[in-house]
Amino acid sequence: MRTISVGLVGLGTVGSGVIDILARHGGHFRTRAGVDLALVRCADRNPDRARDLGLAEGVFTTDAADIINDPSIDIVIELIGGTGAARDVVLDSLAAGKAVVTANKALMATHGREVMDAAEAHGVDILFEAAVGGGIPIIGPLKHSLVSNEIQAVYGIVNGTTNYMLTRMSEDGLDYETALAEAQARGFAEADPTADVDGLDAAAKIAILASIAFNSRVTFADVPAEGIRSITPGDIAYARETGHEIKLVAVGRRTPAGIDVRVQPSMIRATHPLAKVNGVYNAIYVVGDSVGEAMFFGEGAGSLPAASAVVGDVIEAARHIQRGCQALVGCTCSESLPLCDIADLESAYYLRLHVSDQPGVLASVAGIFAGKGVSIASVIQKRSDDGGAEIVWITHRAAERNLRAALAAIEALEVVDAIGTVLRVEEL
Amino acid sequence: MRTISVGLVGLGTVGSGVIDILARHGGHFRTRAGVDLALVRCADRNPDRARDLGLAEGVFTTDAADIINDPSIDIVIELIGGTGAARDVVLDSLAAGKAVVTANKALMATHGREVMDAAEAHGVDILFEAAVGGGIPIIGPLKHSLVSNEIQAVYGIVNGTTNYMLTRMSEDGLDYETALAEAQARGFAEADPTADVDGLDAAAKIAILASIAFNSRVTFADVPAEGIRSITPGDIAYARETGHEIKLVAVGRRTPAGIDVRVQPSMIRATHPLAKVNGVYNAIYVVGDSVGEAMFFGEGAGSLPAASAVVGDVIEAARHIQRGCQALVGCTCSESLPLCDIADLESAYYLRLHVSDQPGVLASVAGIFAGKGVSIASVIQKRSDDGGAEIVWITHRAAERNLRAALAAIEALEVVDAIGTVLRVEEL
Repeated sequence: MRTISVGLVGLGTVGSGVIDILARHGGHFRTRAGVDLALVRCADRNPDRARDLGLAEGVFTTDAADIINDPSIDIVIELIGGTGAARDVVLDSLAAGKAVVTANKALMATHGREVMDAAEAHGVDILFEAAVGGGIPIIGPLKHSLVSNEIQAVYGIVNGTTNYMLTRMSEDGLDYETALAEAQARGFAEADPTADVDGLDAAAKIAILASIAFNSRVTFADVPAEGIRSITPGDIAYARETGHEIKLVAVGRRTPAGIDVRVQPSMIRATHPLAKVNGVYNAIYVVGDSVGEAMFFGEGAGSLPAASAVVGDVIEAARHIQRGCQALVGCTCSESLPLCDIADLESAYYLRLHVSDQPGVLASVAGIFAGKGVSIASVIQKRSDDGGAEIVWITHRAAERNLRAALAAIEALEVVDAIGTVLRVEEL
Repeated sequence: MRTISVGLVGLGTVGSGVIDILARHGGHFRTRAGVDLALVRCADRNPDRARDLGLAEGVFTTDAADIINDPSIDIVIELIGGTGAARDVVLDSLAAGKAVVTANKALMATHGREVMDAAEAHGVDILFEAAVGGGIPIIGPLKHSLVSNEIQAVYGIVNGTTNYMLTRMSEDGLDYETALAEAQARGFAEADPTADVDGLDAAAKIAILASIAFNSRVTFADVPAEGIRSITPGDIAYARETGHEIKLVAVGRRTPAGIDVRVQPSMIRATHPLAKVNGVYNAIYVVGDSVGEAMFFGEGAGSLPAASAVVGDVIEAARHIQRGCQALVGCTCSESLPLCDIADLESAYYLRLHVSDQPGVLASVAGIFAGKGVSIASVIQKRSDDGGAEIVWITHRAAERNLRAALAAIEALEVVDAIGTVLRVEEL
């Protein structure tokens, strides 16, 4: 059995998990998976990391070029992240005829086509299971077991940080700031939580999933994203009273008008499998025309879960190299479907407005909704803690365009202090 | 692109689903999956089925040998089921150098090694994703994305019939007989429900999953199976009162003493993801040393879900044939782990005894438990509808051997009318 040589670029959280798995199970892979892997070179700009990981003499380098230019290396694992140096490492490795395994959601969501084209041009594998859902197998199933389906929808809870925060807010009544501080203290959120709480991380992931599910390239820039900063305990209490949970949902839907792709905090019915996904767990819910509903659940982040997916891909690439069948399944974006304009989408909405507590406010707002063609299903007015009043509205199905027009007019009313939370009631 | 010719043996429920998917999406597979499939021959003993399916002239035959002996056919789909004619079709097709796709759990759980060895000897693929969990991708993920893990446990709700019945009993208070009659009326259960309600279907499925998860062959005959016939509404009410659900769980665990594999109705805590899997849905919950917890959920039966997995496998086999890399991942049972003796396993237990309502009964039974080393966590005695009494016992962790010895002695007591339900409280 030929030994397949592996180079690793990026010795952060996931990289150290990869080293750990290879140290523990590298020997098992010969008998269990039929591949003989050797991690021959590891690169990181920071030499301290090599010391911390106890790498053998001669394995560590600070220059990724030492891996890319080493003709004995078959597979390069890119774990730098981002779209700068990582892009060069990936493209240069592919150009050097090496298979590449990456966990880089930003790269695949932004430069996916370029990377896939380069892999195809050089006849090598590019595998990226770890880019979405950490250790959860989802890209593999979509490209293999589920490939006989026309996928109708993919809904994901793909950001563990925000799901942890929303779970704490829902189950224990925490407010947003407290939940964020706790997530930061427990290492689930960065000091700058923007990418998580504003939905950008989830947007990159749904771009990747939608591209595969609908056979049509969707990029990060294509995905409108809203985050969870405006969600209050009152919103969550209201959701629970009406049999819903609030989740940050990454949506990809095949519609007659094209692909509907977006990230939004949404109310989903509490009995739906996705509503029961709590804490840092992730889940991807898929609807296919033959398989029906399927859901994939697991740990969406963390060193070992992500490394599990990375090493799974390395073994896959190694099998292909041994058998001379690299690039067996490359880019599957064979179509060019249009993207929906989010303004055209229809949904029921949940809205919370802060208003002055005086007669006629409700009538004024209701009049604006009526004028813009937004029909109201229910309305509840209550005193808020600051002496003003809050009005919670649930609409019937309305086009986002009409809702936005109504909100603009409502915001201009003297008696409206602020528009609080606006949530879709997602029908899934 | 070379056209890959497919023959289908068995035109029952799943076979008609396969024909449906190929008719709808066969053209898409060229662009989306890079394979050109042609269903050239279909066999069934019953010619009426060909008529019902509207097969083209010359496609249908009543003799599977017409497919096996046709050198132009690349892939044979076996959907006869069972271990008789199906085994011949599979082995003969492999011997003829054809890739085989099957949904046959009985065959793979009973003759898996023979079938896998034959595929390897002839250098062709044998794929069987549909044998477990219908359309749910689980065998693919275990052999690919999760292959870097040492799998510690696989717990499955893999029989939709019994899960439907238990869900109706739990949510709506039906008794066993009513739930079974309803499942039969809705087409979820056979006229003879033995294979489902006695856990035999689930036993075949966990044999397959355990073989893959633990890299060591487990057969149907290795799996002790208990079914759900004894479960009463009272058992379920008690489970719910204590924060549990009763599910028919197929268990595979890696233990220091070997593989623990069995099918048993069990009490599992209501907050566990498996406890929330209701109705005819299936789920497989996997614990790996790197991925942590992962769960795969979906429709475990039905024509199109199972056909989704079958056609996914056909596309996979076709990709391999086109690229000359068949048998890329064959048998992964590289080890020979012993099986645990179920009598050695320890667990907490739930027990319901029917006894005479007279003084001293509780003391007599408690004395026997004490004598056999089974420690009691709680006991509740209540009048039963028939004028006797029921005593529900929850034990602390005890070896099954000791529990069985205690039950034998208890059953022999004059004052004990019958032993009702015995359930493990599964710690997962």
